[in-house]
Amino acid sequence: MSSDLSQVKALTFDVFGTVVDWRSSVIKELNLLGESKGMSADWELFADKWRGGYAPSMDKVRKGELPWKSIDQLHRIVLDQLLDEFEMTDLSEREKVLLNKAWHRLTPWTDSVEGLTRLKEKYIIATLSNGNISLLANMAKNFGLPWDVILSSELARHYKNDKEVYLTALTLLDLQPEELMMCAAHQDDLLAAQALGLKTAYINRPLEFGPHTTNDATDDMPFDIVANDIMDLANKLGV
Amino acid sequence: MSSDLSQVKALTFDVFGTVVDWRSSVIKELNLLGESKGMSADWELFADKWRGGYAPSMDKVRKGELPWKSIDQLHRIVLDQLLDEFEMTDLSEREKVLLNKAWHRLTPWTDSVEGLTRLKEKYIIATLSNGNISLLANMAKNFGLPWDVILSSELARHYKNDKEVYLTALTLLDLQPEELMMCAAHQDDLLAAQALGLKTAYINRPLEFGPHTTNDATDDMPFDIVANDIMDLANKLGV
Repeated sequence: MSSDLSQVKALTFDVFGTVVDWRSSVIKELNLLGESKGMSADWELFADKWRGGYAPSMDKVRKGELPWKSIDQLHRIVLDQLLDEFEMTDLSEREKVLLNKAWHRLTPWTDSVEGLTRLKEKYIIATLSNGNISLLANMAKNFGLPWDVILSSELARHYKNDKEVYLTALTLLDLQPEELMMCAAHQDDLLAAQALGLKTAYINRPLEFGPHTTNDATDDMPFDIVANDIMDLANKLGV
Repeated sequence: MSSDLSQVKALTFDVFGTVVDWRSSVIKELNLLGESKGMSADWELFADKWRGGYAPSMDKVRKGELPWKSIDQLHRIVLDQLLDEFEMTDLSEREKVLLNKAWHRLTPWTDSVEGLTRLKEKYIIATLSNGNISLLANMAKNFGLPWDVILSSELARHYKNDKEVYLTALTLLDLQPEELMMCAAHQDDLLAAQALGLKTAYINRPLEFGPHTTNDATDDMPFDIVANDIMDLANKLGV
């Protein structure tokens, strides 16, 4: 890479898809719940609808048509709709709360903890996720993700890819744009960061959406680094 | 202790004085700077005035008479006044910036890292300091303070002991008051937290203000735990 990355002091990471494998994790929890309840359904479809289902609510928050809601709250709204749709009427409130927190227990990709631990030696490593702070803190705790700082869209009360999220990160870390690198498995997230002058690293996660759906990787992506995973990002940053 | 602490899930810590020894650290940096510049002065007095000097500005921020300013900014305002008062005219802007960041390099008390590491096994451990996020992140990085989450008055845009600071911590950690314990070496901080229903732990730091000044410890303090240091807090919480 010919980009000058010598100014970079901190790395902010998208989390769902980039650091953790949300899809397998959620499907696994749904399977377990189904077994314990004697229910069966297309859990892959359920997981995909759950993940995709809050985009409309998020857009309403973004436009100010809905007051701020955290991802936990949005997940719960979609969950209630899906439980109706899948005719799963047999869950207590306690079970619903627990199921909604499946998103606090997402499993990291196998390279994530080791890669982040290497990067932490040289850089401040932070989340910059649409997930709320408590979700990200619980997730880190469950799997030893070694974040220095937990940053979230919640602090900006705007969702990515709104510019306020990246600007809030710059303010809170007290950095200039060229001192911060956004790391994500999604081009739109990186393009929004890049438009503000941040450095960018694409982390390729071909299995994020399952074995039958491709991710958004393309040839000649316009980012400072394109990495196969977080260990590869550490290699390419020379740590 | 007869208090019921079984609900506690997270501990938030005051930092200056409670976790780090600001006074010795700042005096040491002033001494070093003095030596390198061939200047001498009462560095203990300088440090004490620096620490005490921003209370008036903080009050103006609190009352809305000044727009929000971070501790880094308040430290700098006071530093410029003290450099005048101590007739230290020989510092470049670069040196002033570096000196102001002495507060990012405060040394932990000898029990802090080990005590926090123990507590982290059972609890979410977070800062809840008037220091800004970047200051707290740099300090943690310099000395291996193992925070799960970095919370700051900066996120509430209110300074402790304003209630908004503690309420922001509850919101971001998604906890009920009885699930959060505030840990500090200052009674006023704990009393403000207690008034909102938080659990409280007093950490006794008799040397915070130097060997010739006492701290605010009294007999029969009304807190859930009174500990000699953070290791003792871990003992008393049974971790």
